Amino acid sequence: MIDPVRYLSNRSSGKMGYAIVKAALASRHEVVLVSGPVALSPSDGAEVVSVESAEDMYDAVAERIGGVDAAVMTAAVADYRPAKVSDDKIKKSGERLVLELERTRDILGSARDLMAFDGVLVGFAAETGNIEAYARGKLERKGCDFIVANDVSQEGIGFQSDQNEVTVFYRNGSSQHLPRASKKEIGESLVKIIEGVLVARRAGS
Amino acid sequence: MIDPVRYLSNRSSGKMGYAIVKAALASRHEVVLVSGPVALSPSDGAEVVSVESAEDMYDAVAERIGGVDAAVMTAAVADYRPAKVSDDKIKKSGERLVLELERTRDILGSARDLMAFDGVLVGFAAETGNIEAYARGKLERKGCDFIVANDVSQEGIGFQSDQNEVTVFYRNGSSQHLPRASKKEIGESLVKIIEGVLVARRAGS
Repeated sequence: MIDPVRYLSNRSSGKMGYAIVKAALASRHEVVLVSGPVALSPSDGAEVVSVESAEDMYDAVAERIGGVDAAVMTAAVADYRPAKVSDDKIKKSGERLVLELERTRDILGSARDLMAFDGVLVGFAAETGNIEAYARGKLERKGCDFIVANDVSQEGIGFQSDQNEVTVFYRNGSSQHLPRASKKEIGESLVKIIEGVLVARRAGS
Repeated sequence: MIDPVRYLSNRSSGKMGYAIVKAALASRHEVVLVSGPVALSPSDGAEVVSVESAEDMYDAVAERIGGVDAAVMTAAVADYRPAKVSDDKIKKSGERLVLELERTRDILGSARDLMAFDGVLVGFAAETGNIEAYARGKLERKGCDFIVANDVSQEGIGFQSDQNEVTVFYRNGSSQHLPRASKKEIGESLVKIIEGVLVARRAGS
């Protein structure tokens, strides 16, 4: 929020995350869904924690991450928030207005250290170019098991769409392309991948 | 848009405007609906012009306002837009980020002069305090026939709600309070008020 009326947001619809929740429930996993404001109804059976701001989402995740085997961080969380939130609706004044923004806390980047999470950690990267380089950098910096990357500049996939096309980048340097499919199908594939990583970790590989 | 992914927006749902469209159609008026991105379906029978940015809405209104008897400007149009839109998704960098904003063109404020509109002009004012002073100032500055004002800091009315409670401020100094009711009912009342102003204007009063 910038004032009681205006806000900063992004085009993410939440559909990918909700599809993963549905697929995980269908595979009989227990699911905690921490969700920002979206126009979707969560599947029955998930424990739903509704939040609005990036700060609230950080707190909700920090509180619950200790109890899970895998944390899947699909939300397109704001990287910056207004440094000052006005209590009243800001009136028009000059021709120019400067909005001072400050960094929010990095939820994915805090999972390993600040939240001491040692389960399977999955990050998402929605990029408009240089996808592999950004995804591999993020994988490394945040200590993820894998990163699911997509190119949101492509027509018909990603944000708001019901379709997606992603590449999964793993720690061992390999990657896996999931060709264009419904978010439902991509969600099911990602749940299988997570289950595979869990099994491999338990086997100590 | 700030970049291909992030944007500045506000809590307005469009419900009040869409309710007025519905009421106007029910009273057998022809309706052109110029609408920004909302999660609503327009009533059958209106000519719909979908726009995204404040600039597109200005152009769409300027193009069509000459042909109408009454222009009802309910949209919560952005007063400022990013001075520069990034072609690529902006990467996180420092702790602080400064977003330079510039004024958008004032659609309601351009109707009388730049668009040479001499029909019934209705403005809306969503405020969080000092409602009457702001509404009367706006009425005067923009040359409206009347302003429909509401207090969006009140719980349960205004933005996103299905209910509203408004005060109509007229040029002759009088005002009319429409107590809390569904947006459907408020929309019907506003259409009746517009019809009354049209009749009075034609009678030369």
